[in-house]
Amino acid sequence: MAIDPKKALGAQIAGGEASWNKDQVILYHLGIGAGVPPTDPRELSYTYEKNLRVMPSFGVIPVFGSLGGIATVPGLAGEFNFMLLLHGEQDIEVRKPIPTEAKVTTTGRVAGLYDKGKAALCILETETKDASGDVLFVNRFSLFLRGAGGFGGDAGPKAGNEAPDRAPDHVVESPTLPQQALLYRLSGDKNPLHADPDFAKMGGFDKPILHGLCSYGVVCKAAVDNALGGDTAKVARYQARFAGVVFPGETIVTSLWNESGQILISAKTKERGTPVITNAAITLR
Amino acid sequence: MAIDPKKALGAQIAGGEASWNKDQVILYHLGIGAGVPPTDPRELSYTYEKNLRVMPSFGVIPVFGSLGGIATVPGLAGEFNFMLLLHGEQDIEVRKPIPTEAKVTTTGRVAGLYDKGKAALCILETETKDASGDVLFVNRFSLFLRGAGGFGGDAGPKAGNEAPDRAPDHVVESPTLPQQALLYRLSGDKNPLHADPDFAKMGGFDKPILHGLCSYGVVCKAAVDNALGGDTAKVARYQARFAGVVFPGETIVTSLWNESGQILISAKTKERGTPVITNAAITLR
Repeated sequence: MAIDPKKALGAQIAGGEASWNKDQVILYHLGIGAGVPPTDPRELSYTYEKNLRVMPSFGVIPVFGSLGGIATVPGLAGEFNFMLLLHGEQDIEVRKPIPTEAKVTTTGRVAGLYDKGKAALCILETETKDASGDVLFVNRFSLFLRGAGGFGGDAGPKAGNEAPDRAPDHVVESPTLPQQALLYRLSGDKNPLHADPDFAKMGGFDKPILHGLCSYGVVCKAAVDNALGGDTAKVARYQARFAGVVFPGETIVTSLWNESGQILISAKTKERGTPVITNAAITLR
Repeated sequence: MAIDPKKALGAQIAGGEASWNKDQVILYHLGIGAGVPPTDPRELSYTYEKNLRVMPSFGVIPVFGSLGGIATVPGLAGEFNFMLLLHGEQDIEVRKPIPTEAKVTTTGRVAGLYDKGKAALCILETETKDASGDVLFVNRFSLFLRGAGGFGGDAGPKAGNEAPDRAPDHVVESPTLPQQALLYRLSGDKNPLHADPDFAKMGGFDKPILHGLCSYGVVCKAAVDNALGGDTAKVARYQARFAGVVFPGETIVTSLWNESGQILISAKTKERGTPVITNAAITLR
């Protein structure tokens, strides 16, 4: 047996309803490193219910639970090992500024299926609507199904958003806390890889690693605060590739390039100089 | 008009139902500084759902909302200004180890009312039962009603649990995060004094202060981890007086004395040497 793109492509996955409130927004922001210094008005706008704003990367949170739906897709179910799934890229389009409290409905579908040789690359696209029926955000999760390639499909497009060959316009250091993953996981991703040393060893790591989507948020915040004057509403789209792991307590160094209509982004660890996020961009509204 | 202890003493206050789950226990523990180092098995037993235990000081959290009930007590209502209320001491008796998930019912009453001259001291006692009807914990909140003294009542007992006149058996340093109060307040105490610089200034502080009950938890953890080998079940009672403020980011230095059947406790700030918690004790089970 092998993946059958004819059956899988376009298949709907179960979405569902979700809701959030200000406390959950604040918890997410603390989880991506907001709140330092605690009396800074900009940090307070992420961590205190008065004048609270929402980081665009928060839009992955109410949708995260839908990922399991790919286990039910015809032509895909039974053809890959969930333990070998790797979240490779994330792309969120924010159609309206994300409210601090909402009740939403999400639908999802397999929007792409590529053959990368050893791995299959599944693009899961979700659309989240608010109570008035307006689309709030669209997420695209790029999921590498390791060991499930070779089914004879197209290799798909190459990654874009290459970092320019010039000095960045901003370089931002974002320290993470030793307990950052323990805090971030309260926003919903309870994968023990990010807390349990035994699971981390099984995954091939010396110790638990930070969630890729936590780094995604840290880097989004670095860009919004330093290249966009803190204006979360300017982010129309945020694309990123997860290029390497961060151990909680390390500092993420984000380089930002101002380009026409977008910010190009790349991030690495300060301690090891290893890539964290590459091929990343924020498209401006 | 003045406080009428005959009417107020023994009056019931509205308690109510509350519940919690593992995420809320973990959030509380992160709020009192747990999780460093993140791979330490003892820290993981506070921050990860596997083998999760509950710090006895958590027992104040599901009850905290009941405090407002003193505004309805006959002989007390209308006789004090809520803005001048000061939480002076906290005393929790833990009758059964606190479970990681529970649904509880709390009842409360005015258990003491003393005349301290300028202030009245109101002892609010709450009893919290689990779903089987067993008493889980009893809280006593000592509330100073500033400006409401002089009603001619008894001055009440003097504080006990004096620190011994010898070197402590353990001295523990507990750093707090700059964003500690922003994190702790997600456990329920949303008083803007702990987040909003403008409110802090109105309260006479240069900047927002840490919650007294956050320090209460930090000090409880220091005692449990260092004098009780991490065994939360050994705590039968924990009494403490709030003697001074902590600014988030300061380090709390806790001194512990092993005595027969109890641990005597005192804590100060490292940076300013000012008292934080005094007249404190853990009674051993």
